[in-house]
Amino acid sequence: MSDLAERLKSGERRALAKAITLVESTRVDHREQADALLTELMPGTGGALRLGISGVPGVGKSTFIEAFGLLLLERGHRVAVLAVDPSSSLSGGAILGDKTRMEKLSMDPRAFIRPSPSSGTLGGVAEKTREALLLCEAAGFDIVIVETVGVGQSETAVAGMTDLYLLLQLPNAGDDLQAIKKGVMELADLIVINKADIDPAAAMRAQAQITSALRLLGSGRMAEHASALQRVLQVSALKADGIASLWDAICAQRDARRASGAWDAKRREQSLAWMWERIQAGLRHAFTHQPGMAARLEATTAEVREGRTPASTAARQLLAAFRESA
Amino acid sequence: MSDLAERLKSGERRALAKAITLVESTRVDHREQADALLTELMPGTGGALRLGISGVPGVGKSTFIEAFGLLLLERGHRVAVLAVDPSSSLSGGAILGDKTRMEKLSMDPRAFIRPSPSSGTLGGVAEKTREALLLCEAAGFDIVIVETVGVGQSETAVAGMTDLYLLLQLPNAGDDLQAIKKGVMELADLIVINKADIDPAAAMRAQAQITSALRLLGSGRMAEHASALQRVLQVSALKADGIASLWDAICAQRDARRASGAWDAKRREQSLAWMWERIQAGLRHAFTHQPGMAARLEATTAEVREGRTPASTAARQLLAAFRESA
Repeated sequence: MSDLAERLKSGERRALAKAITLVESTRVDHREQADALLTELMPGTGGALRLGISGVPGVGKSTFIEAFGLLLLERGHRVAVLAVDPSSSLSGGAILGDKTRMEKLSMDPRAFIRPSPSSGTLGGVAEKTREALLLCEAAGFDIVIVETVGVGQSETAVAGMTDLYLLLQLPNAGDDLQAIKKGVMELADLIVINKADIDPAAAMRAQAQITSALRLLGSGRMAEHASALQRVLQVSALKADGIASLWDAICAQRDARRASGAWDAKRREQSLAWMWERIQAGLRHAFTHQPGMAARLEATTAEVREGRTPASTAARQLLAAFRESA
Repeated sequence: MSDLAERLKSGERRALAKAITLVESTRVDHREQADALLTELMPGTGGALRLGISGVPGVGKSTFIEAFGLLLLERGHRVAVLAVDPSSSLSGGAILGDKTRMEKLSMDPRAFIRPSPSSGTLGGVAEKTREALLLCEAAGFDIVIVETVGVGQSETAVAGMTDLYLLLQLPNAGDDLQAIKKGVMELADLIVINKADIDPAAAMRAQAQITSALRLLGSGRMAEHASALQRVLQVSALKADGIASLWDAICAQRDARRASGAWDAKRREQSLAWMWERIQAGLRHAFTHQPGMAARLEATTAEVREGRTPASTAARQLLAAFRESA
């Protein structure tokens, strides 16, 4: 283990890839090794800017990450790209983090690209990605991008593990074709209108509309960190237009939050929320997998669904049964 | 118990008040009696239109509920008003459900007004309010209004226990003074601009702005049940203007959802979500209150906060300790 840790700390990409495979494993002995490795590496983590990126299919995520990543390499950074995609068990992990989509970035030794774990629930995939993120930091990557496609609750999971969350949008913002799920836009620290070169007038309209919607709906967060105007930007990833300004906007938000203490406070909150999320998941697993509980749960669920037993009464009965048989 | 149930079913308000006091009690024997009572009354529940109402202080909630409630009585309905306010332990429950604020409604025998339970966490208050709601239905109230002031997560709790959720807004919608928390506007099935008579031009602007923001941000839910235009209305509760049109809009949404099956599906989902929320809360309580666990939790929380132990590793260690000592 310690040999792997040393090689990883020296920045060896193969050691990093192997360590991520270890945290992704479902074998119990691997899990123990992974915990030991992570604990050993913890002092070297926390140093990266953690950036979440999402957007609907077709928004140009890969092109954007390629252009953005190459700029960061030019500026002397080392960039890791991870993915959260619980649907990748269906697609074999091909949708996200596919290296062929980011040709130049994936060839560069200063970058590291890893597709989403190819199986698991969102909670499980998110946990593995969080651990992979720590490993990337220990390996010296100072910018870690976590990307997701808008599937289920994956945007919330990604926002919960990153410092800044960036939502890519198409210029046709007013268009119903662009399905944005409830609350996703309000998660975003920065909204980036991509493909602005295709229809500059539409991009301007979209920027104005989104800015005004954020001003109306997102008062709390906005007032704290940045005005709505500073949060909505236009880029063209294909032409690499606006990417440098976007990086400036990211750095400005980072610096303001570091100065106010909000940056570190958010990191601590995220860690504790993660711990509790995992505890809750573990307790729920113990509850549902206790012998005899499955049948009982099924019967009670039917009673509640049919309105024969109040939900709170059902919960108390099930908890009592769980305690008695423990 | 059965005598109380009979009196409650016959619509006796004192029996209803007594039953709600019983479900609010924290005594173990009361809790058992309350469970028995609720189970006995379950067949008579589910018949009401459950309506959630919230809005910032000053928006005119009481005046609105008074005017709206009186209209409903005129139309032949029986109206119960409950409140969810976890902050009422501080204020003694005076903020919400205060009968003096709804003078005519509270004097009418066809109405029933109950303030928020005066102590407890949001989860606890919400549970008691859900149970009180069932009791009101069993007592024959066919419209139950659950009101809340925007404190913490109370809007989400209220939206989770009602069929339709109505957000009251002031006409100065573009104004930053009106603090709307993230995601709250998107919870709303109907947005009602109150005090529209004071500044009709501002109210028109607010209606247009909110309609356009909803069109941009709330595509999914909107397309399903009503267009953005049908969801944003103007009223003046003080002059009772627009209240009848609002009731028509509520009935239209109700009828459309009943016809599509969405109404019943939401009820079933809410009941099961409520059951699981209570199970999770119970498991968490058992976990944190197990002997020796408090000290261990405190130490591990400090390790995670200081970045010495990864959150997922900490969760696994705590779960193992819980299992071993169970």
